[in-house]
Amino acid sequence: MKVKDLESLFVHEVKDLYGAEKQLVKALAKMAKASTDDDLRKAFEDHCIETEKQVQRLDRIFQELGESSRGAKCPAIEGMIQEANELLGEHMEPHVLDTALICAAQRVEHYEIAAYGCTRALAQQLGKDDLAEELQRTLDEEKKANEKLSQIALSHVNQEAMAASQGGRNE
Amino acid sequence: MKVKDLESLFVHEVKDLYGAEKQLVKALAKMAKASTDDDLRKAFEDHCIETEKQVQRLDRIFQELGESSRGAKCPAIEGMIQEANELLGEHMEPHVLDTALICAAQRVEHYEIAAYGCTRALAQQLGKDDLAEELQRTLDEEKKANEKLSQIALSHVNQEAMAASQGGRNE
Repeated sequence: MKVKDLESLFVHEVKDLYGAEKQLVKALAKMAKASTDDDLRKAFEDHCIETEKQVQRLDRIFQELGESSRGAKCPAIEGMIQEANELLGEHMEPHVLDTALICAAQRVEHYEIAAYGCTRALAQQLGKDDLAEELQRTLDEEKKANEKLSQIALSHVNQEAMAASQGGRNE
Repeated sequence: MKVKDLESLFVHEVKDLYGAEKQLVKALAKMAKASTDDDLRKAFEDHCIETEKQVQRLDRIFQELGESSRGAKCPAIEGMIQEANELLGEHMEPHVLDTALICAAQRVEHYEIAAYGCTRALAQQLGKDDLAEELQRTLDEEKKANEKLSQIALSHVNQEAMAASQGGRNE
């Protein structure tokens, strides 16, 4: 890492996002597979496909910047995926696992909302309006993905997890 | 970790928050010390004191649950602090470092907003309304801390970083 000015900080932030998204493509596929709830599985599957496109969007940003994505990593997302994997290793009632997956995924989405928000602000400050627009596109998608997860949790998954935890079933 | 039902998932989430906040007290003090901008340093100092109180709030939640905070950890926040420490090790123009610190801190705040949001939702689902209220209090504080950072970045820090990066000074 060589960050000295706003331009190199911007490149650093784009690399952080790239490291995050690359890891998330695999993690989201795994979370989709582990989901019990149909709506949740579909939300993860859809967002996995969306994330692949977000990686391509970042690839184009690297090209425009004349920079390489080499060495891109994101220890924070690594930590979040580690936490999600630990949860997947627990012997949890399936509906409770769905709730746990939502809790893990919303942490990821919020991290990304912050990261894209800051990186877009840097792009604007640097006068890179076209790149700011691209980053805003992904930011909007992350916000929608997060809202979708909230809606799934509050509409039925959390209640089902509760019913299952009490030994009753509401399905 | 032993997560099987919604109650044990809730305890797991509270432990994740505890692991996060305990690490953040130290990290925020370090970030305050590294800040150039007076408003930013004060924001970090204020939030550091607030975070100490949030740890005490979680301590009370553990007491009410009859659970111990032993073994609480948060690999995600660990990753974020690692990233922030790497930035602190760079030879950056001071105003640029302020911007970098804000980018790092907003990731942390957003992670916490998601984590407290999910944990509060679990408390509500479990009928633990008093604990839900306590968690909501911290959630509101995290949101305000995040807004404060946005306001500092957009009002002057990002511009100062830009001016410094261009070799000009606007102070």
